[in-house]
Amino acid sequence: MERRKENAPDRSSIKNHLPAVIWFTGLSGSGKTTLAKAIEYELCTQYNVHTYHLDGDMLRDGLNRDLGFSVESRSENIRRAAEVARLMADAGLVVLLSFISPFRIDRENARNIISPYPFIEIFVKSPLAVCEQRDPKGLYRKARAGLIPEFTGISSPYEEPLNPQLILDTSQKSLQDCKDAVIQYILENHLLR
Amino acid sequence: MERRKENAPDRSSIKNHLPAVIWFTGLSGSGKTTLAKAIEYELCTQYNVHTYHLDGDMLRDGLNRDLGFSVESRSENIRRAAEVARLMADAGLVVLLSFISPFRIDRENARNIISPYPFIEIFVKSPLAVCEQRDPKGLYRKARAGLIPEFTGISSPYEEPLNPQLILDTSQKSLQDCKDAVIQYILENHLLR
Repeated sequence: MERRKENAPDRSSIKNHLPAVIWFTGLSGSGKTTLAKAIEYELCTQYNVHTYHLDGDMLRDGLNRDLGFSVESRSENIRRAAEVARLMADAGLVVLLSFISPFRIDRENARNIISPYPFIEIFVKSPLAVCEQRDPKGLYRKARAGLIPEFTGISSPYEEPLNPQLILDTSQKSLQDCKDAVIQYILENHLLR
Repeated sequence: MERRKENAPDRSSIKNHLPAVIWFTGLSGSGKTTLAKAIEYELCTQYNVHTYHLDGDMLRDGLNRDLGFSVESRSENIRRAAEVARLMADAGLVVLLSFISPFRIDRENARNIISPYPFIEIFVKSPLAVCEQRDPKGLYRKARAGLIPEFTGISSPYEEPLNPQLILDTSQKSLQDCKDAVIQYILENHLLR
């Protein structure tokens, strides 16, 4: 799809990095947001990268407050997140997103929306049992009690990425090691100037 | 409304300006986008301000592609534009938006969404006859021919701002003068560091 090009100044030229979208996908409780925030902090403070972090709760507080949790609404939730990320990449930012985003087709759609900006898909892999034990928001408990329909991992599938740029198992690796792996990927792929 | 606060680095601290939203409202053909682009260019190149410009066509190409032109859809169009602008202000940017945004209630809603970030409402005022003569997109011609229902200024009202931060009459003032007035407002209100 050809998108309208804006006749605008090269906003990213005043930055020491290229725009990019780093997409964290995985089960609830896998550590997506913890990891994204830690990486954002390091990119911002150590590398002077202009970052922004988006997650599902934030968008559902604002832009996506009209959406529920049906399959269609969850798909639209991901579409809008990707559209916002694209606009922010267009503004020159490195955008980190942590969304369960359980369906391959929605993540592929996100990649298409964000193209030609780099879309770095990171599979935050942690066994369901570990995620369920962590249960940081008490959602698994509610899902097991039947209070949340179509909960990813319990009553709705999670489709693992087939070709993610990185796979990070947070049940095996420390936060520091996971963070280092992402920073290393960014450096190796010349996203910093 | 209390919005969730992110535990994030102070992204705007690496910039020489504060985040802000500059909202251009007015009839189709009043000169909103021309003016916004000229100001964006000057802010970016002369003042090293990190800007982004959003307009209706851009959003309808992407984020808002699911919306039509009913009153509800136009209201939702403005709501989403404001939500995106808020996220970008949160990221530390100066965001310029050019939207007809004909209804006061939608602009007030936008101001509420963007609060506590500065919301600078600029009424780009040009008589309907002048806008219709310019007709840069041929829309007035179509509206007069009955091909566009509920077209602002022809078959749907434009509600003038009651207390805009600036009123710029593009039928009386040059682009340069209008641009200078906005830059002066920004300087006088200490939005640059």
